[in-house]
Amino acid sequence: MEAILITVGDEILGGQIVNRDFAIVSRKLSERGVSVIKEVTVPDRKEDISEEIKKALEVADLVLTSGGLGPTPDDVTREAVAEALGRKLVFSKEVYDKVIRRLEEWGLSVKDAHKKYGFVIEGFEVIDNDAGLAPGMMGDVNGKKILILPGPPRELESVLDRVLDRIAGPVSEKSLSRRIKTFGLRETEIYELLNPLRDVLEPLGYYPSIYGVEIEIRASGDTGEAEDKLRFKEEKIREVLGDNVYGVDGDTLEAVLGRILREKKLTLATAESCTGGLVGNLITDVPGSSDYYLGGVVAYHNDVKMKLLDVSEATLREFGAVSEPTARQMAEGVRKLIGADVGLSTTGIAGPTGGTPEKPVGLVYMAVALEGKTRVIKRIFRGNRLEVKKQSAYTVIDLARREILSGKNE
Amino acid sequence: MEAILITVGDEILGGQIVNRDFAIVSRKLSERGVSVIKEVTVPDRKEDISEEIKKALEVADLVLTSGGLGPTPDDVTREAVAEALGRKLVFSKEVYDKVIRRLEEWGLSVKDAHKKYGFVIEGFEVIDNDAGLAPGMMGDVNGKKILILPGPPRELESVLDRVLDRIAGPVSEKSLSRRIKTFGLRETEIYELLNPLRDVLEPLGYYPSIYGVEIEIRASGDTGEAEDKLRFKEEKIREVLGDNVYGVDGDTLEAVLGRILREKKLTLATAESCTGGLVGNLITDVPGSSDYYLGGVVAYHNDVKMKLLDVSEATLREFGAVSEPTARQMAEGVRKLIGADVGLSTTGIAGPTGGTPEKPVGLVYMAVALEGKTRVIKRIFRGNRLEVKKQSAYTVIDLARREILSGKNE
Repeated sequence: MEAILITVGDEILGGQIVNRDFAIVSRKLSERGVSVIKEVTVPDRKEDISEEIKKALEVADLVLTSGGLGPTPDDVTREAVAEALGRKLVFSKEVYDKVIRRLEEWGLSVKDAHKKYGFVIEGFEVIDNDAGLAPGMMGDVNGKKILILPGPPRELESVLDRVLDRIAGPVSEKSLSRRIKTFGLRETEIYELLNPLRDVLEPLGYYPSIYGVEIEIRASGDTGEAEDKLRFKEEKIREVLGDNVYGVDGDTLEAVLGRILREKKLTLATAESCTGGLVGNLITDVPGSSDYYLGGVVAYHNDVKMKLLDVSEATLREFGAVSEPTARQMAEGVRKLIGADVGLSTTGIAGPTGGTPEKPVGLVYMAVALEGKTRVIKRIFRGNRLEVKKQSAYTVIDLARREILSGKNE
Repeated sequence: MEAILITVGDEILGGQIVNRDFAIVSRKLSERGVSVIKEVTVPDRKEDISEEIKKALEVADLVLTSGGLGPTPDDVTREAVAEALGRKLVFSKEVYDKVIRRLEEWGLSVKDAHKKYGFVIEGFEVIDNDAGLAPGMMGDVNGKKILILPGPPRELESVLDRVLDRIAGPVSEKSLSRRIKTFGLRETEIYELLNPLRDVLEPLGYYPSIYGVEIEIRASGDTGEAEDKLRFKEEKIREVLGDNVYGVDGDTLEAVLGRILREKKLTLATAESCTGGLVGNLITDVPGSSDYYLGGVVAYHNDVKMKLLDVSEATLREFGAVSEPTARQMAEGVRKLIGADVGLSTTGIAGPTGGTPEKPVGLVYMAVALEGKTRVIKRIFRGNRLEVKKQSAYTVIDLARREILSGKNE
């Protein structure tokens, strides 16, 4: 089964917002063996949308649209799909009443503009949207399926989840793919290391990002067989790349660190300077992180480093805030202050200003303090302010993972 | 001038990564009056890429590709473009030598796979990439332009910036557009409030997101005239929406708060529970934020709330961690602990678990403490864990903006 996704929106074509819907739809369809063969983004213009729908119906089995279902006059997807199929829009009191009930539930008043939500394409089934006002719609056209989805990602997901089983069947077991996730090596290093095994692994691609490099592998066969083959490939990669592999598929560095802390019954505290709270934010993105994360200090100003984290004035004077000893004292200090088993710290120059020849923008020290053992590393990251912050955060989380796994005391 | 962007990548079609390139290219081209009339994403397949390039050249003046220039065998954009145009790939020692020098600069070893970077499409100009290894390429075909860009966003931006003036001319002054950014009102509320003025404002769209709702307006005319018309429209919107308008275009809530703090010479400290560091992270995303942001405490565990922020045990016992008095004591406590003029706090239930009938998932209290005045608000946010965190963070930043603007003491 092949699908084409049509995203509607001037705000996406104009670059004002990033198209997240596309990744959500693609991932969910891929899991079920549907290949997304193309994605097209078009403006909020009835003729453009309508033309793309006609073209997509010629080549794909499933055509999805996202966006353009809002209450304002620039939202015209309903009209465009109806036109492409030569169908009418019919007002449904039942659908409209649901919208009114939803508004009342949320304590919002009903406006004229909301009336639009009640219009349904003739012959289409209405799919409930648990996260917003605009319902989705699904219809059949000459043996092909059309699915109309609202634009806001959460709403799109809510509608899509209700119909996935019906349009794409259950998650496929005949052909499995897996992402092996690594941190600490570059794409070319991984490529060279795995290249001798290429006939065994048949890797589908190497995907570098700020979270490290991912390696995609695939295997097919009957239930069980595909999984065995895939596991064999994964083991080969783990043998070669060692602890640079931190997980697979949906695993994130922060969730993996959380799993390790939970298993070892360890608690964590963070002391952040250049990352400004990002490390704590990532760690608390993981549901249940309150089981091991106690809290931390954002020590942006040196006074806070001294007062709360016990970084000595002499250290700051002699070595500066961005230095090995400061990072060390911050990690050890927050561990003690909060009473945690593990303390993390970051201190660096995120830029764009503040760099010197000796301490350039991108210079970051990161430390992990365990009982009786503190490890500090130094990196010079490339990129802008936000990229330096992100690389620092992921690197210190990865460092904690490695340090804890390598044993509490050396 | 009209442009089409072709994004290449199985990892994008498979939904493993979100396409950020597209938004970067679209925004930069729009600023210069080039309209992006379509975006297409295709797999890493030579024939698919090549076919889309041919189709795009039929309708657009400018065709851009992004992605598929890496060192591994699944990167085939160079080959596909050459094929579409009936041109050869030529090895350039000069280009390859630059890649080698770059690798040496970064302290990395040269691998066989890097050779690929040296191949250039016949007749194309090579455009330097300051942020990575794969250079861009630009060529003319029957009066139309083709620009080949690397996939990683920072590299794409680096190459694009070098040629923007040549392909699109300087930023246009004849037709100006502006985004008026609001926080605190819903899309339909804004629509109803501004609808009576629609003939004056001619709004182009309303764009809701987690950062609030943006209203796009446009004006054209000679230099000066367009700006005057635009300012008139902006003033009208500000009159109607009041302090729900926090800025325009590139302004973010965190940057606007920073500007206000700087102007009023106030310092800031944060006490975060459910946001886990996100507020500090957003505030420190702003360059120069060390001028007013001193730091804060992530008080995830109740012990940290008590020990560092002076939240009383009685309050926690009687009202719980997620309550009005806890939020108040956190904001006041962090203000005192850090010695800042303004203290912010968040405490809530981000989910997915931990909710009760009285305190459901999404319930968040946020507080802002100024000298002699603390304001606490309560919200029940919809959405998943990350969305609750984000809404809490932006809401408390917006609350600080309003509180400081409305006067330090009431």
